[in-house]
Amino acid sequence: MEFVEKDYAPSEDDLICLFRVEPNSENSFERACDHIAKESSVGTWTHLGTLNERAKRIKARAYKLNDPYVEVAYPSELFELSNIPQVMSSIAGNIFGMKAIDNLRLVDVKFPKKMIEEYAGPRYGIEGVRKTMEVPERPLVGTIVKPKLGLDAKSHAKVAEESWIGGCDVVKDDENLTSQPFNIYEDRLAATLESRDIAEEETGEKKVYMCNTTAGSSEMMERAELIKEMGGRYMMIDVLTTGFSAVQEMRENGPDLIMHAHRAMHGALTRNKKHGITMLALAKLYRLMGVDQLHVGTAVGKMEGGKEEVRMIAENVEKMKIKSRDETKELGQEWHHIKPVFAVSSGGLHPGHVDPLMEFMGNDVIIQSGGGVHGHPDGSKAGARAMRQVVDAKMKGIDPWDYAEDHIELKKALDLWGTS
Amino acid sequence: MEFVEKDYAPSEDDLICLFRVEPNSENSFERACDHIAKESSVGTWTHLGTLNERAKRIKARAYKLNDPYVEVAYPSELFELSNIPQVMSSIAGNIFGMKAIDNLRLVDVKFPKKMIEEYAGPRYGIEGVRKTMEVPERPLVGTIVKPKLGLDAKSHAKVAEESWIGGCDVVKDDENLTSQPFNIYEDRLAATLESRDIAEEETGEKKVYMCNTTAGSSEMMERAELIKEMGGRYMMIDVLTTGFSAVQEMRENGPDLIMHAHRAMHGALTRNKKHGITMLALAKLYRLMGVDQLHVGTAVGKMEGGKEEVRMIAENVEKMKIKSRDETKELGQEWHHIKPVFAVSSGGLHPGHVDPLMEFMGNDVIIQSGGGVHGHPDGSKAGARAMRQVVDAKMKGIDPWDYAEDHIELKKALDLWGTS
Repeated sequence: MEFVEKDYAPSEDDLICLFRVEPNSENSFERACDHIAKESSVGTWTHLGTLNERAKRIKARAYKLNDPYVEVAYPSELFELSNIPQVMSSIAGNIFGMKAIDNLRLVDVKFPKKMIEEYAGPRYGIEGVRKTMEVPERPLVGTIVKPKLGLDAKSHAKVAEESWIGGCDVVKDDENLTSQPFNIYEDRLAATLESRDIAEEETGEKKVYMCNTTAGSSEMMERAELIKEMGGRYMMIDVLTTGFSAVQEMRENGPDLIMHAHRAMHGALTRNKKHGITMLALAKLYRLMGVDQLHVGTAVGKMEGGKEEVRMIAENVEKMKIKSRDETKELGQEWHHIKPVFAVSSGGLHPGHVDPLMEFMGNDVIIQSGGGVHGHPDGSKAGARAMRQVVDAKMKGIDPWDYAEDHIELKKALDLWGTS
Repeated sequence: MEFVEKDYAPSEDDLICLFRVEPNSENSFERACDHIAKESSVGTWTHLGTLNERAKRIKARAYKLNDPYVEVAYPSELFELSNIPQVMSSIAGNIFGMKAIDNLRLVDVKFPKKMIEEYAGPRYGIEGVRKTMEVPERPLVGTIVKPKLGLDAKSHAKVAEESWIGGCDVVKDDENLTSQPFNIYEDRLAATLESRDIAEEETGEKKVYMCNTTAGSSEMMERAELIKEMGGRYMMIDVLTTGFSAVQEMRENGPDLIMHAHRAMHGALTRNKKHGITMLALAKLYRLMGVDQLHVGTAVGKMEGGKEEVRMIAENVEKMKIKSRDETKELGQEWHHIKPVFAVSSGGLHPGHVDPLMEFMGNDVIIQSGGGVHGHPDGSKAGARAMRQVVDAKMKGIDPWDYAEDHIELKKALDLWGTS
């Protein structure tokens, strides 16, 4: 088999992919690996009169076979290294549709230094965000304005204001709120930034609004530029539904704003354990492309994803050097100059989740809670207060129930939702 | 259950989604449907103090439950109708990651007239392409330059020239060829368009080059503009790896070129029968966004996808009015002013596949063959000739083997690869 070379030693310029492979009934595991390395690099299904020496030299090699896992090494000449869509059209392109496999999962991608050098990475990263927020140590506390859709611009700004005044650092739009007729982007942005100013004045804290710019590329660019013009500090993007081209564009040619990446739609790719692309692989791509904050999961709350997995993803976006701890799950990565991304936990969280969440995520996490703030019996301001209180409790090493004894907002939240 | 309304009658402005749902062990089918309609519209996991009348009015309704299938109606007020990323962040966003489901598949989307009115659709469509090519009836014959990667710009142009002179109408880049150091975009474009002129001169036929512009948004725009400037007629885009924002951008603000959509990576979303998004749903989105040509599958060759499925997708992109023939598979669609998209069959095809392929695809198909042209025993020119011959045979109603008796190139191809 031409594309399987068990004694191949990857060069430091090779990009490495870890795949989980289930061949169809007509192929052995090894033959399926051969097909994968072939179709994702230079080959096709038949002998070619046009095949040249370069093509033979730069082919991918399946070199580490560990059924059902395989590592494939791709010489960097195969890629336009600065072009993520091109890289994905190779390593995550036609191979998912081949008859030769029943299931195929891209588990991890390890970028060579040569590729990393082509990217600036996050503009702010964890350190830049903490400096902007003037919050050096504790997790940031955020909320998403709820209901997801339905509020007009003014009511939206009002809910945001109460959340900030209650104690949230961050207020975020929902992933499906952009510019609907009942809540036009420009109006919402203006009103909410005004509320932000009021909240900053009242609390003496830095407050930020993550306004959802998601749209076609140039429309999204205009929306981001308007944020900058109006004195905002953040843009939010749904990075899956906008796509790799637009995310690269916003980082490379967009205004100087902190970039918050929401991952709506990721589950269509990441959920099935045997097929698709892992959140780990996507997260590393978004770090390389330069988002500053990324949703990585909660391991508690309404969304799926186990603790171990969420922690692994968070480490791969937050640390500078990752060593693989399990060769069926991650490849490790040296990030060189690429700054750490602030991991975001969001989805069905309430104050009762915060203690265990901080236990395994540490302090470098943005804890976002929508229903868990606005669903508080005494409203959004009290809900925000309860979230800040439970974070403070954990920072001081105090059990939430104990802390709740003289923090009434937290008490009411825990009474309603419990702890987990 | 608030979001299940079995007696709901959708309004003509509602967008309808057909989902296949597998609840997790803690939820009934009906409860999972409730979660889906809730999370993809206005709801969250808890009661909200901020919930208003508008949110209640514009909520999605799961109204047609047919375990494991459900139709969900979304009032159009939920959407920024001109913004596909926003629509997808709603109907194909967080719901794929909910704990409440084990598997979820977006099977089809039916766009209301109100949404269709926001889009121009394909600029050329089948009729425009046929007029440009001066080929009124038969399928178009195309090739992809092979090997996928490895040729320099000059050799690439030479292979293209032979393919055109042999009989191909269309020459296409491979999905992972963009601008690698050994084959720079500008050089390849210039050399290949020169070859096109030579081939047009020699054959008296129209010939087109589909140059792969795939990149970050503004780089892709520049690459497309260069095609226009240099007298090209087509741009090619990898529509999945670039993403919805970039595809909308290229149609709305790009140069006047025919847009060829390659679907590399679709299998990561479409392959699993229980989870993800069907190719049918994606294909309809790309038609709405205005691509002129789209890969829909082959049902023969190296890629998966059955005949019935490929035919259904092709009909949904090529017809003006589609009636659902199976309510577990498609919703039907009225396309109004949106032109038909030319369906492309590509992936492991050779002349022996053409007769059965035309049998079920009809004449409105672009038949692309890479290895099946350049793998011909006598080279690319003979391979292209064999492909044209077998298309001609079918147009005349002659069996390929009979036609091969006095068409030596076809004979050699059939002897090598057989018929299927």
